[in-house]
Amino acid sequence: MHVNNKHFKTLWMNGKSVFMIDQNLLPFSFEILESKTYLETCKAIKDMTVRGAGAIGVCAGYAIAQAALEAPKANYDSFILKARKDIEATRPTARNLFYATERVFKAAEISPKHAFEIAESLSLEDENACKKIGEFGNTLITDGMNIETHCNAGWLAFVDYGSALSPIYEAARTSKKIHVWVDETAPRNQGAKLTAWELCNENIPNTIIPDNAGALLMMNGKVDIMIVGADRIAANGDTANKIGTLEKAIIAKEFGIPFYIAAPTSTIDTSCESGLYIPIEERHEDEVLYGYGIIDGSNSIIKVRTSAPQAKAFNPGFDVTPARYITGIITEKGIIKPNIESIQKLFNS
Amino acid sequence: MHVNNKHFKTLWMNGKSVFMIDQNLLPFSFEILESKTYLETCKAIKDMTVRGAGAIGVCAGYAIAQAALEAPKANYDSFILKARKDIEATRPTARNLFYATERVFKAAEISPKHAFEIAESLSLEDENACKKIGEFGNTLITDGMNIETHCNAGWLAFVDYGSALSPIYEAARTSKKIHVWVDETAPRNQGAKLTAWELCNENIPNTIIPDNAGALLMMNGKVDIMIVGADRIAANGDTANKIGTLEKAIIAKEFGIPFYIAAPTSTIDTSCESGLYIPIEERHEDEVLYGYGIIDGSNSIIKVRTSAPQAKAFNPGFDVTPARYITGIITEKGIIKPNIESIQKLFNS
Repeated sequence: MHVNNKHFKTLWMNGKSVFMIDQNLLPFSFEILESKTYLETCKAIKDMTVRGAGAIGVCAGYAIAQAALEAPKANYDSFILKARKDIEATRPTARNLFYATERVFKAAEISPKHAFEIAESLSLEDENACKKIGEFGNTLITDGMNIETHCNAGWLAFVDYGSALSPIYEAARTSKKIHVWVDETAPRNQGAKLTAWELCNENIPNTIIPDNAGALLMMNGKVDIMIVGADRIAANGDTANKIGTLEKAIIAKEFGIPFYIAAPTSTIDTSCESGLYIPIEERHEDEVLYGYGIIDGSNSIIKVRTSAPQAKAFNPGFDVTPARYITGIITEKGIIKPNIESIQKLFNS
Repeated sequence: MHVNNKHFKTLWMNGKSVFMIDQNLLPFSFEILESKTYLETCKAIKDMTVRGAGAIGVCAGYAIAQAALEAPKANYDSFILKARKDIEATRPTARNLFYATERVFKAAEISPKHAFEIAESLSLEDENACKKIGEFGNTLITDGMNIETHCNAGWLAFVDYGSALSPIYEAARTSKKIHVWVDETAPRNQGAKLTAWELCNENIPNTIIPDNAGALLMMNGKVDIMIVGADRIAANGDTANKIGTLEKAIIAKEFGIPFYIAAPTSTIDTSCESGLYIPIEERHEDEVLYGYGIIDGSNSIIKVRTSAPQAKAFNPGFDVTPARYITGIITEKGIIKPNIESIQKLFNS
């Protein structure tokens, strides 16, 4: 997608280096980080320079390929095995990461060239899946629609296109007039920071709203459809996603507004029976107690206390939306109902 | 209520001066502002040094009393008439303000002494109503409850006790063990800033949560009751309150959690047929696009951009919760159902 009218992907590999947009600096600075070793790439995953399930997976694949290129001939096998362990220790909850390391590691056992080729094909897979999600999702969008989204499931969370934002980009490409309500998505504000930044760069009309304003807009008929991403989808269609997703899904149902999850099939965990078995990550309370941003005119990010100094906070990173609140799941293989039968059929097709 | 173990009211009058807690500095600094003239008091209402329907009303009453004391004998009548106009121009949406200015102005036409007495009685009325709301509301609270609240309807929004927080203070006074989930209440964070500050000062266990986390807590049985304040209640029970209230009311209903409005009867506007006729104030987008707080160790409040620099925002200050989502209204005359009959009966009793 575009940054200042120039095309970019979230990350790519060239020679022995992995290049990636430094997402810790967005939306205030746009910088490409060159990671020259697999250990530097590990650090980039860990400190969230690169984030989002799809992007993390591809980055981990590239890291294995880097390790294979770095490995001395004398102890090639033990070097790449240690590298795999290092990479898998970066963010143990991201499923895509393990999927990627397993596949690229097998290729690395043959040769560094093989490893790079498989890592590259994983990147292409991610890109193609997101593109297809956009095409299927676009069939739900008509001219003049107001689309609400939560958090960032845009191209920054994948290699390109994104999941929830991909249908929006496709709608714009097919000349539909649309407007996007961007949930701020506190406490980390990935909506206000990343989604709004992406949409502004694509010249798609968008407006940030406080998370509190969703129900008012929905009740007043200002939202035609809501599309969000997913971190994990259970076998029965229950979906874990950024905290606040459940809230919006319930309200959308109350007012009869279609509520869609957009995610590649790699996000569906068929070994997970239902949402009851998806653990909820608790994050540091400072994300709630402080605001992170810049003073106008500067571009160094500072944190300011935006809450009572003696107070404490609870900060669950995700919630699980039961399938009954979800209208459908937009995947690269088509749009399905959120139930066991439809999901099984998807994997058998 | 208490600040550092010392008793305070939100505002009071002494001699010719109105004294008030400077709420623009909370929760980072605690300072009492002395307003020596009615014009200074106007400024304090306008710039939100004092805020909250009850507190604004009482402050406006005191301002008329100040004007009566300041008025030169030669043109007493025209001076107090101009003062009334100045005061009523400060925050034209706060109903309590007009109720107060009308009553105190009539008294000022007799004498400055009369004006002060009526202003003082309005303050006492506000205090007593809030105390009674606490007593009635406390009958809904049992030992061990987790209570969720939104925004700040505490003593800072009135003269003392508050509306939504008054039952919580009364529960604590009657030795019930309770815990309060404090909605951050973006964009202005009055929950994280003012409500958490009030509760910490009263040593009531409380935890700030992102507005996005309410549904997760409610679905998981972590909320036993929700109590919020009101800015205006229509004749049919529809209630305007801080943005996000509607969202919580819908979710509470979905999970069978009692959802109460706490407000003095002066908040009920019987001339307003339903929520359809309550206008929603749109506030400046900067409240959404920026965070306002302090750098740890400092106490000067700064604003930092917490959103994409090229983005814009929509910032509705309030929403209207239809009566069907409200379990009951806690008033100083008792707890009533949110419908025309119960509200009419309240005013006829």
